[in-house]
Amino acid sequence: MLSKSLSKYIQSLHQKKYRQEHGAFLVEGSINVLELLASDHPVDVLLVTESFYAENALMLDKQRVRLEMVSADDLKRVGTLVTNEAALAVAKTRENRYLSAGPDEFVLMLDDIRDPGNLGTIIRIADWYGIRKLICSPTTADVYNPKVISASKGSFTRVEWYYAPLGDYLKALGDSAVYGAFLDGTDVHQQAFGTSGYLVMGNEANGIGAEVERFVNQRITIPRYGLAESLNVGIATAVICDNLRRIRSVK
Amino acid sequence: MLSKSLSKYIQSLHQKKYRQEHGAFLVEGSINVLELLASDHPVDVLLVTESFYAENALMLDKQRVRLEMVSADDLKRVGTLVTNEAALAVAKTRENRYLSAGPDEFVLMLDDIRDPGNLGTIIRIADWYGIRKLICSPTTADVYNPKVISASKGSFTRVEWYYAPLGDYLKALGDSAVYGAFLDGTDVHQQAFGTSGYLVMGNEANGIGAEVERFVNQRITIPRYGLAESLNVGIATAVICDNLRRIRSVK
Repeated sequence: MLSKSLSKYIQSLHQKKYRQEHGAFLVEGSINVLELLASDHPVDVLLVTESFYAENALMLDKQRVRLEMVSADDLKRVGTLVTNEAALAVAKTRENRYLSAGPDEFVLMLDDIRDPGNLGTIIRIADWYGIRKLICSPTTADVYNPKVISASKGSFTRVEWYYAPLGDYLKALGDSAVYGAFLDGTDVHQQAFGTSGYLVMGNEANGIGAEVERFVNQRITIPRYGLAESLNVGIATAVICDNLRRIRSVK
Repeated sequence: MLSKSLSKYIQSLHQKKYRQEHGAFLVEGSINVLELLASDHPVDVLLVTESFYAENALMLDKQRVRLEMVSADDLKRVGTLVTNEAALAVAKTRENRYLSAGPDEFVLMLDDIRDPGNLGTIIRIADWYGIRKLICSPTTADVYNPKVISASKGSFTRVEWYYAPLGDYLKALGDSAVYGAFLDGTDVHQQAFGTSGYLVMGNEANGIGAEVERFVNQRITIPRYGLAESLNVGIATAVICDNLRRIRSVK
């Protein structure tokens, strides 16, 4: 059913090199594909199982996209998920376009987040907390990695990203608030967050790099009440975002 | 170097059945093994590489435990980690002993948390927020699963757990505060948390089950500012714990 050339094309998109060459990436599983189709993100090819088609026929028939009926085994063979009984889409990557924080906007900045699962989780957290822009260092995981897309649970359709060397980016920025988590910062429970700025999250093992640290003008800390040495970067992002969004009616 | 029978014994501990039969579990990697040895948790066997031994000789020579020098290849072969150039310990499991919240204590209750990675992350979060007791439903992942231990990053040495049917447990409890996250609860930014009680976290897909829900007397909700449909259970646990611990000087 699935042609050899299409199979090979899809499998090539497991690798960053071919995603860049073709300007395309994979979206897998029911939730992610449904979120993709509900967005205005351009889609190239859609592979669906009969059962997924039956459940979503009305919506699928409206899509102007090459649609192929395949088996769950086909999806497993050409995709990256352990099981996928629903669908796989090939979507177009977006241009790497400059982004910055608007006057009442917080933007997340990721300095060397290496783990694709962490990046996907952070995209989901950003989406939960109404943060729509990410600035990523070139060493941060590729956002189009299938593991990132899967872990984002559809939130990749509502968040934009811009990859750039963070030192240069920050130097050109002027006097914005730049928040960064360190061990010696202001307790996030006490910190008066403004209404706009950048929140920098650092590498899983080494935190925020020296090149970026010199632009951080608001050092913050998540208070610890026990003995664990650290928190995972996704967890830390969520806790800080929750504090950032809290209405500080009274200090 | 590593005897065939010891290899087989260690490999058997990948499985819950044999962990229960032998009352033993695996602790792998440098951080986890060092935290284990720094705790009072009983240890049976310790496999170390030459480099790990060299770095920790003083401390290791003090341990009253069977110690074997092995290669990183041996550790990879008998253990569960993709790479481990440091150490592996066989530790004794603890008795399943009743636990409850003291007068000024919060306890985490896990209703059917299936993913070992999530459970390990939750143990690490509990430890960060000074929560030292977990009550787990029998359907929650086995805390001695090597993935749980690894993801806890040593925090398993500072947190205790009790597995029990949660309905029966809660019925016998009397009038404690039982907090549970639902979509229609009080905003955690507004909730006045007391100084003690139980925080229930529910299954990854289905949340808190009906059997446990009827004992929840404080329904809470993490406020959402964007469009993501949900947060991962580890993330939600951290955000709620952060709100629980915040000093509410003024409402």
